[in-house]
Amino acid sequence: MAEWSTPQMAAAAAAAATVGVVATLWATSATGGGDAARALWGGGSAGRRGGRRVVLVGAGPGSADLITVRGARAIAEADFLVHDRLVSPELVAMAKPGVTLVNVGKAPTKKRFPQSEINQILVDLATNAHAHYKVPENASIVRLKGGDPFIYGLGGDEVMALREAGLACEVVPGLSSATAVPACAGIPVTQKGVATSFTVLTGHVAPGEPGAADWAHVPRQDATLVVLMGVKNMRKICSYLVSSVGWAASTPAAAIQSGTTTGEVVVRGTLTTLADKAEQASLASPTILVIGQVCDVLEPGAVIPYAQLENLAKASDGTSQASSWLPAPPRNIWGLARPPPSEEAEK
Amino acid sequence: MAEWSTPQMAAAAAAAATVGVVATLWATSATGGGDAARALWGGGSAGRRGGRRVVLVGAGPGSADLITVRGARAIAEADFLVHDRLVSPELVAMAKPGVTLVNVGKAPTKKRFPQSEINQILVDLATNAHAHYKVPENASIVRLKGGDPFIYGLGGDEVMALREAGLACEVVPGLSSATAVPACAGIPVTQKGVATSFTVLTGHVAPGEPGAADWAHVPRQDATLVVLMGVKNMRKICSYLVSSVGWAASTPAAAIQSGTTTGEVVVRGTLTTLADKAEQASLASPTILVIGQVCDVLEPGAVIPYAQLENLAKASDGTSQASSWLPAPPRNIWGLARPPPSEEAEK
Repeated sequence: MAEWSTPQMAAAAAAAATVGVVATLWATSATGGGDAARALWGGGSAGRRGGRRVVLVGAGPGSADLITVRGARAIAEADFLVHDRLVSPELVAMAKPGVTLVNVGKAPTKKRFPQSEINQILVDLATNAHAHYKVPENASIVRLKGGDPFIYGLGGDEVMALREAGLACEVVPGLSSATAVPACAGIPVTQKGVATSFTVLTGHVAPGEPGAADWAHVPRQDATLVVLMGVKNMRKICSYLVSSVGWAASTPAAAIQSGTTTGEVVVRGTLTTLADKAEQASLASPTILVIGQVCDVLEPGAVIPYAQLENLAKASDGTSQASSWLPAPPRNIWGLARPPPSEEAEK
Repeated sequence: MAEWSTPQMAAAAAAAATVGVVATLWATSATGGGDAARALWGGGSAGRRGGRRVVLVGAGPGSADLITVRGARAIAEADFLVHDRLVSPELVAMAKPGVTLVNVGKAPTKKRFPQSEINQILVDLATNAHAHYKVPENASIVRLKGGDPFIYGLGGDEVMALREAGLACEVVPGLSSATAVPACAGIPVTQKGVATSFTVLTGHVAPGEPGAADWAHVPRQDATLVVLMGVKNMRKICSYLVSSVGWAASTPAAAIQSGTTTGEVVVRGTLTTLADKAEQASLASPTILVIGQVCDVLEPGAVIPYAQLENLAKASDGTSQASSWLPAPPRNIWGLARPPPSEEAEK
């Protein structure tokens, strides 16, 4: 499961998902641009001494240009790109001509791939044992995951599966929505004299119910709580923190939907008022809760909201600032108008 | 204060620090490369409608290519780059010809800049009120900080100072060492059925002493603790968690020094044994502690250590893989051998 992603991305990805599960794009005739791109990004897989390379890459919290440079390069070098349904299509589009895209976020006959199947696909690709793909000895296999692979991303399962098959992999961490979304919304998760620790936990199970996070034991002095997947249980979470944990009812809190995207919505309140306000604003998943005095440290507007940056960019030149920030050499430098991925039937 | 950085980086930066507090580099004659670089990275500050732009950028945990694409672009566009002493010199070198570097990590007469002075420098630059610099109306002022600006980075102070002067700024989050260092060392901070939450706190004050984090209240079921700045108090921390908080003495723990760099050292043990092992290995700052069952989830070697990637790269082509991954167009594409920054006296 990807850490999370946004309705906006889901919509954009819906089109890209027509690529299907198996698709080989952009025949290798476009090697001019490819060569220059490889030069730019550092000359290919320098140092690899044979064997297939497997890299788990974190795509970041939503906006495509919040991927790391190392992650972007891994995508540009990928021969096989195994991606979630909800990873930004702009990132998938950075792959080189000839890449094989493997969309494990959606299958024609199922709602989503079970993690065990994704693990098996990675192992099969890395060992050239896949029923449908031939994977050359020096191929680079990139597993692109939303957020960070190791923060609610089940990356550990994939590393373990590879290891059981005798393989080691690289991990390129990604920005987690847990910290990047509050940051882009102007909420520092730590602040000297205000919060010297932060705890990240999931709220998909309500406090006190079986399988819930350890809500009873969370730092409560000079601390910040970041809750992922907590929109459904927001009211229970806020009330539990006051009645059972000892947080003040007046503790500032914020709920951020679709952070780091043009669809970002920030609702501010306290542990007493947040759930009502979020309901009024019809906040839905993906929404992140931030609880603690840090929510009041910076005035709203002190940090320019991401949506405003995007709108400014669009107002001036008609393009998305996020996408123009991405180093997509074939499009930007060589003027190759890459066709959008064409639909291809599953083999 | 930067989140943290590494001895290796400190050594590298020591040379770069000879730039001094004030230096204007690479006369604008090299505009050919500059223009192409600007095209590559998306055409300059699209959408800005006058006024100076102030951007807080997180540099990431150490390795230069773990900065975000958005952060790298902000550096490439900066007219003024206000950077810490310990930010990777490779990132500073990405700035464009004509950039004014302002090193706030080191001054000839003081050990380091107090935060209030850094705040004032940013405000003065943004309002063109600085005694030494003329800052054009459309200038881009980038504050480059180690790690993430809002995770032990005092970014909140800088945003507040700007706001008090009537200014808003952009924030580009960075990978925090708190999550990226464990990831690169093969430790997932969350793992289904093992750890569903993680808490990040600082260990520069020992548990129980005034000013310490709220150690008494930390999640203890299915949880991970990440401790920054805790090398000095490692023994006290481990012992407090067992004797006062209720963690099992056999809980796996790891200490990682200089994570995501070629100097990375990983020491593994339990709450009982870690402090001794770290002492035997002479671990020093910056070291991150990870405490919890997640330390044992992945076999050592399942995730290829960063240092090994670097060594492989060096073995094959003599260059650092990290630096070759960085998009430094003037050097890589146009063959301009940029001179190293020359020393210049403080004005």
